[in-house]
Amino acid sequence: MQVPVRRIDLTDNTSFDVYDTSGPYTGYASAAECHDLAIGLPRTRDDWAHPGPVPASATASASASACGTGSDQPPLVRTQLAWARAGLVTPEMRFIAAREGVDEELVRSEVAAGRAVIPANHRHPECEPMIIGKRFMTKINANIGNSAVTSSIAEEVEKMVWATRWGADTIMDLSTGSDIHATREWILRNSPVPVGTVPIYQALEKVGGDPAKLTWELYRDTIIEQCEQGVDYMTVHAGVLLRYVPLAAKRVTGIVSRGGSIMAAWCLAHHRESFLYTHFAELCEILAAYDVTFSLGDGLRPGSIADANDEAQFAELRTLGELTRIAKSHGVQVMIEGPGHVPMDKIVENVRLEEEWCEEAPFYTLGPLATDIAPGYDHITSAIGAARIAEAGTAMLCYVTPKEHLGLPNRDDVKTGVITYKIAAHSADLAKGHPRAQDRDDALSKARFEFRWRDQFALALDPDTAREFHDETLPAEPAKTAHFCSMCGPKFCSMRISQDIRDYAAEHGLETVQAIEAGMAEKSAEFADAGGRVYLPISTN
Amino acid sequence: MQVPVRRIDLTDNTSFDVYDTSGPYTGYASAAECHDLAIGLPRTRDDWAHPGPVPASATASASASACGTGSDQPPLVRTQLAWARAGLVTPEMRFIAAREGVDEELVRSEVAAGRAVIPANHRHPECEPMIIGKRFMTKINANIGNSAVTSSIAEEVEKMVWATRWGADTIMDLSTGSDIHATREWILRNSPVPVGTVPIYQALEKVGGDPAKLTWELYRDTIIEQCEQGVDYMTVHAGVLLRYVPLAAKRVTGIVSRGGSIMAAWCLAHHRESFLYTHFAELCEILAAYDVTFSLGDGLRPGSIADANDEAQFAELRTLGELTRIAKSHGVQVMIEGPGHVPMDKIVENVRLEEEWCEEAPFYTLGPLATDIAPGYDHITSAIGAARIAEAGTAMLCYVTPKEHLGLPNRDDVKTGVITYKIAAHSADLAKGHPRAQDRDDALSKARFEFRWRDQFALALDPDTAREFHDETLPAEPAKTAHFCSMCGPKFCSMRISQDIRDYAAEHGLETVQAIEAGMAEKSAEFADAGGRVYLPISTN
Repeated sequence: MQVPVRRIDLTDNTSFDVYDTSGPYTGYASAAECHDLAIGLPRTRDDWAHPGPVPASATASASASACGTGSDQPPLVRTQLAWARAGLVTPEMRFIAAREGVDEELVRSEVAAGRAVIPANHRHPECEPMIIGKRFMTKINANIGNSAVTSSIAEEVEKMVWATRWGADTIMDLSTGSDIHATREWILRNSPVPVGTVPIYQALEKVGGDPAKLTWELYRDTIIEQCEQGVDYMTVHAGVLLRYVPLAAKRVTGIVSRGGSIMAAWCLAHHRESFLYTHFAELCEILAAYDVTFSLGDGLRPGSIADANDEAQFAELRTLGELTRIAKSHGVQVMIEGPGHVPMDKIVENVRLEEEWCEEAPFYTLGPLATDIAPGYDHITSAIGAARIAEAGTAMLCYVTPKEHLGLPNRDDVKTGVITYKIAAHSADLAKGHPRAQDRDDALSKARFEFRWRDQFALALDPDTAREFHDETLPAEPAKTAHFCSMCGPKFCSMRISQDIRDYAAEHGLETVQAIEAGMAEKSAEFADAGGRVYLPISTN
Repeated sequence: MQVPVRRIDLTDNTSFDVYDTSGPYTGYASAAECHDLAIGLPRTRDDWAHPGPVPASATASASASACGTGSDQPPLVRTQLAWARAGLVTPEMRFIAAREGVDEELVRSEVAAGRAVIPANHRHPECEPMIIGKRFMTKINANIGNSAVTSSIAEEVEKMVWATRWGADTIMDLSTGSDIHATREWILRNSPVPVGTVPIYQALEKVGGDPAKLTWELYRDTIIEQCEQGVDYMTVHAGVLLRYVPLAAKRVTGIVSRGGSIMAAWCLAHHRESFLYTHFAELCEILAAYDVTFSLGDGLRPGSIADANDEAQFAELRTLGELTRIAKSHGVQVMIEGPGHVPMDKIVENVRLEEEWCEEAPFYTLGPLATDIAPGYDHITSAIGAARIAEAGTAMLCYVTPKEHLGLPNRDDVKTGVITYKIAAHSADLAKGHPRAQDRDDALSKARFEFRWRDQFALALDPDTAREFHDETLPAEPAKTAHFCSMCGPKFCSMRISQDIRDYAAEHGLETVQAIEAGMAEKSAEFADAGGRVYLPISTN
């Protein structure tokens, strides 16, 4: 079993390995240069030895049978959740343990507890397994997919490759329009990361865009179509209940989730309970057959600071908790979608309630945006909230690009969104004390302190931009090894004094700070001897 | 007395007022177009009636006399701190109360307690007074000033005007080089916001860049020169003591503050205690004469995640607390500089210790950067930390531009840095429940919900960028009034359903959610009558 890693070669002949999401595309200028997109990636997971079917649940839960399964015998399924509960370590779990640098048993036990999910449809064997859970590295998702104006299919594949190059751990294909099936097929066959969808979008296309015409049967067939194709996780807005819709009337920004508003429209039009809710157990049976993970959608997430943590939002969250228990009783993995626009003082409460009501299922949040007043900068308003909510326990962050609220993201916006969210996720990993997180900060800071500019660039989340910014002021090659930078200039650099102190310690064999203090008087004389200058012009180095 | 405000006219014939820092330059393409920069701004504060001298301190503190003032009688001074302690409300306090929308007594009492400062040198009468304290709006500072390569003086004035246009509450002139005095003069005479400096930079220029050649007398003369010119607050690294320097030897990135490393170099070269520390009481007497505010510098701030909250950093902070008490006994206002690079889980401790050790003097922090791994994006890594530390009580944030660690910021970088920090500051104000903060979020979100695109742009922190991003996808003028946006297209928009619900409620006089629920059956029939469509194409609107 080969586990991907990106090895960064450093100028001191060492190297530094980082978690990598870019699959085989690393280093190619475009996806098409890497391999034939019509053939797709190797179906690696097909060759792995998976356990056979096991009971969906150790004990059939009361809530499951109450909801219409009608059976006291749990069905046999082949899902990571059921295998984990049966005490089995799957190849995916082993792969993930190596990838994250943790014990296989931690992976298995977190999945068994429902605190982590491995989105890996049996029909997406091209995927490199990854895990979403608060005990692991915080993950990020990038949305791709055209909106009203269709871009080409190949373009969507390139967007996926571009997003994963910069670190997207999963991508969601939110395509609408006529080529939705074909676009998804190309993306799935070429994606090294799990692919999520919001199936109601395609269902809506099938009824010409009229929510009232949606039916359970049509939705079910869409779900099966997407399961067959290999979608790894699906957003299902089954928590938007008829009685919650009026709660949104009081809001400043009403319902801002597309899936949420589609279901609200359906409920209003028919004055009946959502078919996603009434048929939820059947939905579980379908997803269990493929090991597709539920991403229970937050159709009533707040779209403005004023609406944060309100009755509508939390009413839905409680229902998602109820649905979580049903899904797990079917052996289906579940994560819970959350936030939107939430001020910083109300962020932690979201995590607390989600964990309490949804059995600590992995939380997957959009941002949240910590303020509404900066359209054009919502990657930043949301990174502030995202870092905070991830520190509090959110397992995956859905990125926001600078174009949020204003238009469709282009290639640069996608990159900016992904890098911004890698920053938020990594900041949270540092704060949570993730075992490997600080290593990269230390390696980069060490390179910075030692004026190894090329290493500093190479270790950065975005080496290209770091190098480009440096070169704007000091473009020449010698500047890449200069012991100063453009901020302070050659005559004076604050980091030099520290190196003088350290060199002094090394030279004199002074191991401890106390010893250095003792050497202070001597150092003083030495400084005077050297002309009292600690900062020498570059030419003398 | 006229108090500045920026009035945003909205398309519904209402308007929205926001706090404004841009002085008379608002709306001019450049500073030079606004007025003759050689003449400078009107000296408004010279005409205000200020109280006469009052005792520097109600009771001469023991620490002050221990430190060399040698007098039991507190001197008479004319500072905002001494006036506030004497129960006097100055014109500056009245101006600020109106500007912030708070009681004059809150302003006075916070200044009297040393929890807020009003940086307003008697010799900078062109300045529009503002306050820095945690009970008020979180402020941001933008650094300007050339580094090794000299830019023109006029360019520096334009940078100041540019930074304040986007919301910088103060600017720091960090110029080095030969024109340092003249540059500062131009900036001061034309700046509507307080100007801060780090006087040791100019002192170092005077001795040809050799820290060992610095003397107390030369530094003192530099301080007086800058006080005379009108500098409002000065960074003084008086907490870098000889015995703390070796603590930095153990660090990954040593000393990263320029001022800190200059003083460390001096201490090492002479093996004597810092002259800033030993002459601190004399420094207080000089600053008191002009009402210049101390910004006690954090010369040992951490330059990497690895060095955060370490012994060196906190040893200095304790000393800053000692100096705070001395300064206040002289009637001098004080703020404390802090962070640098700090992971999120260690941020709040910084505020807690600063408040405990420094008598809750306003905290003024650089970022902090929540991770080291994203050079090129350090406005974002630091906005994450800045929002967090401001929420915890930091009163002013020093901005970081995307070029941090890599090069000198250009005009775009300055703007990006300022807007990013306005976001962080405002997010904190929302979280702290600042009385006026959410009004702007609500106004913008209401405009968004009602598809008033022009109002959404106008209320944004950066209207130009918001409009530009919108127009990239939907450039035509009609799109500015369209009831949809490019994200979901004309056929479907999630916000419409909410408006349908609300319209229904208004039409039927249903005031409460319960009543709306009761009307649900009727609504259902109505939907069916209307053809079951809630989303109508734009052409029918």
